[in-house]
Amino acid sequence: MRTRGPLTRAQLAEQTSLSRATLSSIIQTLLTKQTLTERAVSGSAVRGRGRPVSVVTLNPAGGLALGIDLGQRRIQVTISNVAHEFVASGAIACAERTPWARRLQLALDLVDNLTTRHDISLTALAGVGVGIVGPVPTDAVRSPDRVALVGDTLRARFGVPVYVDNNTRLAALAEAVWGAGSGVGSALYLRLSYGVGGGLVLGGRLFAGAGGAAGELGHISVDRDGLACSCGGRGCLERYVSLTTLQAQCDSILEARDEKARDLLAEAGTRVGEVLAAACNTVNPEVVVIGGELAETGDHLFQPLRTAFRRYTHGQVHRSVRITRAALGPDAAARGGIALVLTTSPAALDQEASRP
Amino acid sequence: MRTRGPLTRAQLAEQTSLSRATLSSIIQTLLTKQTLTERAVSGSAVRGRGRPVSVVTLNPAGGLALGIDLGQRRIQVTISNVAHEFVASGAIACAERTPWARRLQLALDLVDNLTTRHDISLTALAGVGVGIVGPVPTDAVRSPDRVALVGDTLRARFGVPVYVDNNTRLAALAEAVWGAGSGVGSALYLRLSYGVGGGLVLGGRLFAGAGGAAGELGHISVDRDGLACSCGGRGCLERYVSLTTLQAQCDSILEARDEKARDLLAEAGTRVGEVLAAACNTVNPEVVVIGGELAETGDHLFQPLRTAFRRYTHGQVHRSVRITRAALGPDAAARGGIALVLTTSPAALDQEASRP
Repeated sequence: MRTRGPLTRAQLAEQTSLSRATLSSIIQTLLTKQTLTERAVSGSAVRGRGRPVSVVTLNPAGGLALGIDLGQRRIQVTISNVAHEFVASGAIACAERTPWARRLQLALDLVDNLTTRHDISLTALAGVGVGIVGPVPTDAVRSPDRVALVGDTLRARFGVPVYVDNNTRLAALAEAVWGAGSGVGSALYLRLSYGVGGGLVLGGRLFAGAGGAAGELGHISVDRDGLACSCGGRGCLERYVSLTTLQAQCDSILEARDEKARDLLAEAGTRVGEVLAAACNTVNPEVVVIGGELAETGDHLFQPLRTAFRRYTHGQVHRSVRITRAALGPDAAARGGIALVLTTSPAALDQEASRP
Repeated sequence: MRTRGPLTRAQLAEQTSLSRATLSSIIQTLLTKQTLTERAVSGSAVRGRGRPVSVVTLNPAGGLALGIDLGQRRIQVTISNVAHEFVASGAIACAERTPWARRLQLALDLVDNLTTRHDISLTALAGVGVGIVGPVPTDAVRSPDRVALVGDTLRARFGVPVYVDNNTRLAALAEAVWGAGSGVGSALYLRLSYGVGGGLVLGGRLFAGAGGAAGELGHISVDRDGLACSCGGRGCLERYVSLTTLQAQCDSILEARDEKARDLLAEAGTRVGEVLAAACNTVNPEVVVIGGELAETGDHLFQPLRTAFRRYTHGQVHRSVRITRAALGPDAAARGGIALVLTTSPAALDQEASRP
């Protein structure tokens, strides 16, 4: 329930493979202890058996999770309880080159502001999940200074486990938990914005890979003789389809009104489709979720994208993969921070809390 | 132990997170019941505490697993017990276009031959894992007739669960359990032979993906205007680096003696490196294992491959991924069939045994 939020008894039976009787007895014990609460689903019809459908959740009073997105141009703070109810949310713009220490201060001010305004006590805070711009390597690779700074500052401030990950990867996780990839076993997320990034979610959890770079679709090469990229690669997708690149060629590209904008979007869609084909021939996910400003241009991008995807994938792959637009808004990464706290199992908690 | 084979008590403690005392008591019970057996590791020195190192395994008499590879040109049968001991193995060549019913008969004759020769009783057979050529889709896509034929025939013959999968994917699993990917959390396998295929192993299990095509690296495009492929794609790697294609250009390519062969190998290595770069930017596995006849040409292939891999991957990826040659021989896919039986949990057994 921590990972999935409210569930009906039928869903719980399916998830746990426990008998109805066993499950009933466990739920009753936990309801009595107030670990769980149960409520009727609003608007649910009285069904065959004559009982309204109800869902069981963790007691909202059982704890809070704080999600922070220290984005390139925007800082977002979202607070949820362990029952997956979002209790407060706010954002402020910041200049692109704002130093990390300053961004952190802005985020902490926002937290104070929200908790005061909504009368929220953080004494029951279970953890903080923070999204930052740029790579966040696993232990296999040395952790950059900004990861340590963010983690240390927030641990000192709140005294709870703090999880730091790339904000695009957190948006991927949020889409898999609450958005367009909700309920699927495997989701590949691609964000088409001023940068191009992605994330891979398997079994409801972020899959980091050996170096923490799984889902780095923006750095798959689309031109073997192409431009060198700061990642160390060459001809990276990001160099061709980032909003920075596209807006330099046509500043009204997001409106998609004139032919030039549409041609550029079609070309970008084709490139993206090619990269998604390679990625999906590798992991064959159930769903590909595409977010970021560029995804909002709709069919101008998606039609050539789907054509290229079909053209370059194995038949088994394009028949089984669904491609869809992201469902969450600009708070996706902050929500992903919350998902990171809620999906981290108690066993994993001790281990990961000690991560630098 | 079914999945991992023999383990020391220290390894069991680490895997299970149980205390030494609890573990000791459980092991003692299971040793008394003869579910487990314990033996000293041959050649292990007497260590600090004065006791020789011993490993605990499932009782070899507890069951057998049968692995069959119905390959393109070769049929392989391997029998193992649940303690991961291979007790019999044999292979015969077959013509490339041998019908499936005939291949099955050849495999069954080989099983009879091996069990008679080695005096093995199949009454304790736990399951059969079979590798076949060509795609084996998941339920999301209609199962081809040959999958049903193989499954039905073997279930009727042995009366146990039968698992059918693509033989390259089974070789991937075997490499992850007993070969070059042993002990790692994520392994990507690529087989460079008359066909080019692959498999993805996560957490010791084959990752099928939504349509069963995860790891189809042979169908990642290396030329957007390239040749159409029977898979439905275009410019697929397989069309450029399969042994069939390469031997048509130079029939002594595997010897790598003359300049022509070396140039072709270098070009193939570069293509393979590009595809592995895209695949690894997507999943960032711990290890890439390369098998098949072409991998035996060593540095002629691997040097340009590594250069291209480095050139087209995110820095975090190429620093964290190890590329290595496969460790198992031509019985890899049959062993993979055994691994499929042994790694399928009892809970999953009921479900998967009913797969067509």
